[in-house]
Amino acid sequence: MEATLAQLAALLGGKLEGPGDRVVSGIKGIEEAGAQDVAFLANPKYAKALPACRAGVVLVRLEQKVPDGLAVIRVADPYLAYAKILTQATAKPYVPLGVHERAVVEPGAALGRDVSVHALAYVGEGAVIGDRVVLHSGVHVGAGARVGDGTVLHPNVVLYHGCLVGKRCIIHAGTVIGSDGYGFVPDGERHFKIPQIGIVQIDDDVELGANNTIDRAATGRTWIQSGVKTDNMVHVAHNCVVGEHSLLVAQVGISGSTKLGRKVVLGGQVGLSGHITIGDGAMVGSQSGVAHSIEPGQIMSGTPAMPHKLWLRTSQLIRRLPELFDRVKALESGREGSREPLS
Amino acid sequence: MEATLAQLAALLGGKLEGPGDRVVSGIKGIEEAGAQDVAFLANPKYAKALPACRAGVVLVRLEQKVPDGLAVIRVADPYLAYAKILTQATAKPYVPLGVHERAVVEPGAALGRDVSVHALAYVGEGAVIGDRVVLHSGVHVGAGARVGDGTVLHPNVVLYHGCLVGKRCIIHAGTVIGSDGYGFVPDGERHFKIPQIGIVQIDDDVELGANNTIDRAATGRTWIQSGVKTDNMVHVAHNCVVGEHSLLVAQVGISGSTKLGRKVVLGGQVGLSGHITIGDGAMVGSQSGVAHSIEPGQIMSGTPAMPHKLWLRTSQLIRRLPELFDRVKALESGREGSREPLS
Amino acid sequence: MEATLAQLAALLGGKLEGPGDRVVSGIKGIEEAGAQDVAFLANPKYAKALPACRAGVVLVRLEQKVPDGLAVIRVADPYLAYAKILTQATAKPYVPLGVHERAVVEPGAALGRDVSVHALAYVGEGAVIGDRVVLHSGVHVGAGARVGDGTVLHPNVVLYHGCLVGKRCIIHAGTVIGSDGYGFVPDGERHFKIPQIGIVQIDDDVELGANNTIDRAATGRTWIQSGVKTDNMVHVAHNCVVGEHSLLVAQVGISGSTKLGRKVVLGGQVGLSGHITIGDGAMVGSQSGVAHSIEPGQIMSGTPAMPHKLWLRTSQLIRRLPELFDRVKALESGREGSREPLS
Repeated sequence: MEATLAQLAALLGGKLEGPGDRVVSGIKGIEEAGAQDVAFLANPKYAKALPACRAGVVLVRLEQKVPDGLAVIRVADPYLAYAKILTQATAKPYVPLGVHERAVVEPGAALGRDVSVHALAYVGEGAVIGDRVVLHSGVHVGAGARVGDGTVLHPNVVLYHGCLVGKRCIIHAGTVIGSDGYGFVPDGERHFKIPQIGIVQIDDDVELGANNTIDRAATGRTWIQSGVKTDNMVHVAHNCVVGEHSLLVAQVGISGSTKLGRKVVLGGQVGLSGHITIGDGAMVGSQSGVAHSIEPGQIMSGTPAMPHKLWLRTSQLIRRLPELFDRVKALESGREGSREPLS
Repeated sequence: MEATLAQLAALLGGKLEGPGDRVVSGIKGIEEAGAQDVAFLANPKYAKALPACRAGVVLVRLEQKVPDGLAVIRVADPYLAYAKILTQATAKPYVPLGVHERAVVEPGAALGRDVSVHALAYVGEGAVIGDRVVLHSGVHVGAGARVGDGTVLHPNVVLYHGCLVGKRCIIHAGTVIGSDGYGFVPDGERHFKIPQIGIVQIDDDVELGANNTIDRAATGRTWIQSGVKTDNMVHVAHNCVVGEHSLLVAQVGISGSTKLGRKVVLGGQVGLSGHITIGDGAMVGSQSGVAHSIEPGQIMSGTPAMPHKLWLRTSQLIRRLPELFDRVKALESGREGSREPLS
Repeated sequence: MEATLAQLAALLGGKLEGPGDRVVSGIKGIEEAGAQDVAFLANPKYAKALPACRAGVVLVRLEQKVPDGLAVIRVADPYLAYAKILTQATAKPYVPLGVHERAVVEPGAALGRDVSVHALAYVGEGAVIGDRVVLHSGVHVGAGARVGDGTVLHPNVVLYHGCLVGKRCIIHAGTVIGSDGYGFVPDGERHFKIPQIGIVQIDDDVELGANNTIDRAATGRTWIQSGVKTDNMVHVAHNCVVGEHSLLVAQVGISGSTKLGRKVVLGGQVGLSGHITIGDGAMVGSQSGVAHSIEPGQIMSGTPAMPHKLWLRTSQLIRRLPELFDRVKALESGREGSREPLS
């Protein structure tokens, strides 16, 4: 990256206080940064480092006091501004590879412009691959599946037949989209398989971590809405809906037909029962087990889940159970003791 | 699907009340179904929809009251009947692909009749593949492994060397069968690896979800018996036995040498300790942690696991711990208070 | 295996009491072993089987009493000795395959001597593969990644670009190394992706189980130090450090930037919060949730984690909560009752 401070201020929509023609080329911490570097101050408690700061420019909050002579760009969120500059600085120009001769594209698949189908990737019959899509080695795109423009499927991602992935998605390695939902009905001793004839629909700008499993619907669709980001090893069962911009941290498991609203946050290793609803903006603390629906905006924790503040108190008391039993025992002895004078 | 009501009744072993020559071709909900559709009534509480129902035929319980003129097929389990019709309706005729020229079959592997070895699938030396087996792209069948007639390995399934999969199994994408069990013995600072020289044996009619891991035995076998169905991301350690027709819901983990009887059900995210026994027909509630053996037929929940009914009471009391501490404190104050008049 | 007792004693550094030229060729349990077999006695409680033992030689503890005439090799740890003999007995001579014609090695990759790059393995541009490395089918080695001498990547392992794996490592099938860490910053409604520009560094003699996910660092490295052994489905987030010889049992999840010291042991399904430190030699019981740092050598269990001994007491008391509520209620009634005579 090489950019003038004026260019950076324009990129960030920020207010520059300093020389617009100064050129910077690196990104460093506020204490390490030199005259060629951008630094940022997100947490005000580190403001004491500003007087000694030698950075070419510092990204600061709108209201931040700064020493005279230090070039700054004022922005609403310096950390976001840092992420944007880092993105620009580390972006590589996209060079389409085309279809590698060792890739396999079945007859009837349709490829968009400027795709990169790497060696050992597989595209099934009738699949539709958008423009600038990248399919890495070991990827399987099933028959009739669709991948939107600009999406990247990392190595060994499996997209089963008929499933849909939107535009600008990033699907990390080993993730499976569209395996059969877990549906059986007892038939005497045996479990009779209920055909899973629905699909998975993933909307635009979704990022799924590595080794996720998103099951196809029994009928209809399992639906991951736009902007959702999952961590690694997240499991979403058949017919679930994960609302826009929700965040699912690692090892979360969501049972069948459960619906998440917009901007829900589930902590690591959380388990949700099936057929419940998690309202918009609700949050669930890590390792919690949720058996009942949650209202919008609530913060819940624990197994069984309870309001987070109650869990904070309760969870501290669990370790005091031995003491409590002792105290109750003492009361019981005391009562017996205190009765004696009365008898 | 196109079928007469007489044909459907024969398929289901049900009792038809209506015109045997009526033809139906679709499957819909009881309120949406029209004259060409089959509907089903599994839950009696929806019986009130029957009078207005326009379906060509409705699958109902043996004892269900129905309006005059509505064609029905009486069966013991309408939901099972629905699943059977849906299976028939959505089944596609199997057309063997043979061995794709971009698949890799090592010398000495034996292939049955009518197999489908897709592009980029790998079959190792001395492997034995049964009739009508389907191996999707990215599948790895290790040296000397065996896959029974009619089994499907979905994309990127890995079957390590020497492991066995039975007939009519369905193994979903990304599942690993036969990785080394987790066995080490301390050697000073280091952990010395214990060779894992056993195998995994999977019997007939097993379905494993996506991204499971079933470890090979230290010696002998890790054994998944016939009819077992697992959800996604289930982990089974070395030398475990999972008894016939057991159900393991998503993200279950079973430690080494643990034995499950027949028809055990483990809820999502359950963890079992090693070297324990879970009796026939036992059930464990989701997220439970089980450190001790469970008798046949018991239902257990919680960490540590306790009888499910006790867990239902206990788990409601956990959130009342703050109240309980307050009540005990009040008793203690009261006792002190009540002592004063005595002193 | 065919070996004389003298050879075995030399291999183990043990003291032979018996004929040095006796040849044994099998390994069996102490009751099944015959004159051609090695047996071992690790647990003294099975010593009563010694008088009837017909093994060619038994591996015993240094201080073990043995019947006259029974050949033994005395060692500090008979189980370790068994593992060493088993390793020798089951080791196959390594025969390098070279690069299979159906493997894909991109230009600019460097391969060491005596490698085995199996069919359908992929080696990216500029990757460096050490001597005697084995890459199975479906493996992806990203651009610029490095794999040390003698390491085995089992089928469908994914090593993202630029990541490093040391010498003599074993990485089991489906494991993903170097997927992006889970890092986003709010940008109004959306989550803005923070580029993950660090790497994963895995040191020597590490074994990772199947379907693990080890995320690349935001900047710098996620670091798995030498001798670490993980079970299946272990998740390690960005910028974590897992210290030498630590053991992570199945389905463990470690949040970002958490540091584990040397020889830490985490039980199955444990979850660790981010930005905490687990001291050398600390142990965490299975299914525990750890939100705070742990001092070296401590043993913790439960959610929230507490000292293991306290957890053992506490966890027994949870199931007695209904009783405790009843007892408190009785005290409350009693107090009311006892007050009456006072009023």
